[in-house]
Amino acid sequence: MTSTASARPAAIRRAALELFMRQGYPATTMSEIGALVGIRGPSLYKHVASKQELLAEIMDGIMDALQDAHQRAVSGTADPTERLRRAVEAHVRYHARHRAEAFVGNREIRSLTEPHRSAVLARRAEYEQRFRALIADGVAAGVFRVTSTRVASYAVLDLGMGVATWFRDDGEFSENEIVWQYADFALRLVGAE
Amino acid sequence: MTSTASARPAAIRRAALELFMRQGYPATTMSEIGALVGIRGPSLYKHVASKQELLAEIMDGIMDALQDAHQRAVSGTADPTERLRRAVEAHVRYHARHRAEAFVGNREIRSLTEPHRSAVLARRAEYEQRFRALIADGVAAGVFRVTSTRVASYAVLDLGMGVATWFRDDGEFSENEIVWQYADFALRLVGAE
Repeated sequence: MTSTASARPAAIRRAALELFMRQGYPATTMSEIGALVGIRGPSLYKHVASKQELLAEIMDGIMDALQDAHQRAVSGTADPTERLRRAVEAHVRYHARHRAEAFVGNREIRSLTEPHRSAVLARRAEYEQRFRALIADGVAAGVFRVTSTRVASYAVLDLGMGVATWFRDDGEFSENEIVWQYADFALRLVGAE
Repeated sequence: MTSTASARPAAIRRAALELFMRQGYPATTMSEIGALVGIRGPSLYKHVASKQELLAEIMDGIMDALQDAHQRAVSGTADPTERLRRAVEAHVRYHARHRAEAFVGNREIRSLTEPHRSAVLARRAEYEQRFRALIADGVAAGVFRVTSTRVASYAVLDLGMGVATWFRDDGEFSENEIVWQYADFALRLVGAE
């Protein structure tokens, strides 16, 4: 296998992401995806099984990246406030950098068929529960105050999704400035001391 | 015109919204919209000009509703904290109740063509600026503390969008309980005293 051939699956996923973002999953055809990477006709199926498989891989890639970033973020400290700050920074940074993934990941959950849909929803629930646990740790330590750790974790996570919709690289604030402001928002939101 | 005939444009808009939500604007055809309200073939065009016109009307309806609710919310008090609280309550309540509108409104901005796209973006910018002004009022009064009123207003508005994605009528918390928790989140987020 040449390096070009081995790079194809990644290029095909990028092309699929681009088209899913631009026109939505239902309106995108495999031949459009093939055309974008210069592969004509049935030879696309040497690299990918189906459009559904591509969407599932994109969704899994998003969760892999978010969970890895989260793990790295929280592993360096035991302080609940600092752990939540770092986790939110990682979450917001991912959404600022990967706006197409965030957009498609959010919009096309309903386009996934089983078993992909349940698998991705389970991974999202697990990711949300990590944030809920961080908030619960802070509440237990007496440094956060919330009515519901679940609702607070939803609100914190939604801040990331929001950034993905409006952040621009050439905007008024740099990625770091947005990441830091949003981490402050999240800590305020949970009533951090 | 019978009452059935006059109700048709609204029924057609509801059908369009339903299909745009389920399968996206690009993948939806006028004949599918017609089929959902029991109108076959070209007679649908007696009621609506085009699919694009339907999307633009849906988008305008969302902004009408949000701006009306906002206006009613803030008109009763001059206190900056109370004004922001009520504005956020109205915003979150709309998103909890109109999840399909919120979803399509957010996802299909890119499906609007000109002059609709610029018009809707201008209305959204105006709505955002109302929140920015409320936050600036609180900062000026010394009761809010934010790095950027613009970024804070984005974060506050994104909380509403988040609710639209996960709120369920049969969930753990009632609409009011979510609205109140989110209003508290927003006030905390802007550093309200």
